[in-house]
Amino acid sequence: MIERRGMLIIMSGPSGSGKGTLVSRIIAEREDTVLSVSATTRTPRPGELDEVHYFFRTREEFEVLIEQGELLEHAQYNGNYYGTLSAPINKWLAEGKNVVLEIEVQGAEKIMNHRSDLVSLFITVPSMKELERRLRNRGTETEESVMARMLVARLELTRAFRYDYVILNDDLDEAIECINTVIDAENMRYSRMEKYIMDVLGKH
Amino acid sequence: MIERRGMLIIMSGPSGSGKGTLVSRIIAEREDTVLSVSATTRTPRPGELDEVHYFFRTREEFEVLIEQGELLEHAQYNGNYYGTLSAPINKWLAEGKNVVLEIEVQGAEKIMNHRSDLVSLFITVPSMKELERRLRNRGTETEESVMARMLVARLELTRAFRYDYVILNDDLDEAIECINTVIDAENMRYSRMEKYIMDVLGKH
Repeated sequence: MIERRGMLIIMSGPSGSGKGTLVSRIIAEREDTVLSVSATTRTPRPGELDEVHYFFRTREEFEVLIEQGELLEHAQYNGNYYGTLSAPINKWLAEGKNVVLEIEVQGAEKIMNHRSDLVSLFITVPSMKELERRLRNRGTETEESVMARMLVARLELTRAFRYDYVILNDDLDEAIECINTVIDAENMRYSRMEKYIMDVLGKH
Repeated sequence: MIERRGMLIIMSGPSGSGKGTLVSRIIAEREDTVLSVSATTRTPRPGELDEVHYFFRTREEFEVLIEQGELLEHAQYNGNYYGTLSAPINKWLAEGKNVVLEIEVQGAEKIMNHRSDLVSLFITVPSMKELERRLRNRGTETEESVMARMLVARLELTRAFRYDYVILNDDLDEAIECINTVIDAENMRYSRMEKYIMDVLGKH
């Protein structure tokens, strides 16, 4: 095996695109890939563990992290902070692990604006009709929330151009294969193979 | 299947890297991919067919092609012109076929300087020692020609940074799989999926 620094993999997609399932399967299947854990100020739910489900921080601690530039991105929802710590990601990358960051489009764009060493994947549905079908099939969404999610999905799709790759999630196994193909191909990029070329040339 | 324009795939690598074998196998295995045919002013050898092995042109015809900008690149070897016609490549691409162009580093760089819609692969050997072994195993190379090829190989390897991807050809089947992975991943690039996203959004 060729030794390389890991890659930061950003995955976004509308609610109903199935990105959560895809992320779980990729993490489970690939030994070289781990999931980024978010930081938050919200209270842990029963069974949630610090550093496993979230990095649980107090509001004061979180604000220090923001001030010190320790977060790749952050946002507030329902009065709580959520964000992505740089340090654990950089540690994994240095150890040669790929890190998957499942994140909504706005957070993803913030990271893309500040970091170039990443691979970004936008998960899409085959059609808006299929998205609507999936949202209704959940059985937990009200008419209003289905309509709201459809509207947000359209907005998110218009930002797909910011991403390196588009993964169509029509068939789950095919989508997993596509994501694996992208990760494997990115490992062959010149920038990731440069050390190997230097070795062949005898330049250490 | 998602309909797309084909992609221009440039493949280079030192003599002894096995790129010729890789190109033949990729063309044979992938229905979506064809080989670019070069133009030349040299005399056809027995059995060589116009438009199959080469586009055979007279010196006068070739010089008109140069003047009219009909060639992606061209060079002279042993008093004959060799070059790559744009028109047949553009026709294949428009029909959705990928076109593989096997070309030395200098010609490849000329094309890269004028065209951005391409994917470039540099084929490398695992070590210079292995390259030397392969060249000697041919049994047709003199000591001088082995040394000359090794020197050219080193120069070519220093230009690998111009390429998008580096393919290690240690095991032939693995190298073929790597090339297939790159082509499949490139098909999922946003630029190649944009039409699909527009379809989902209902923008035609």
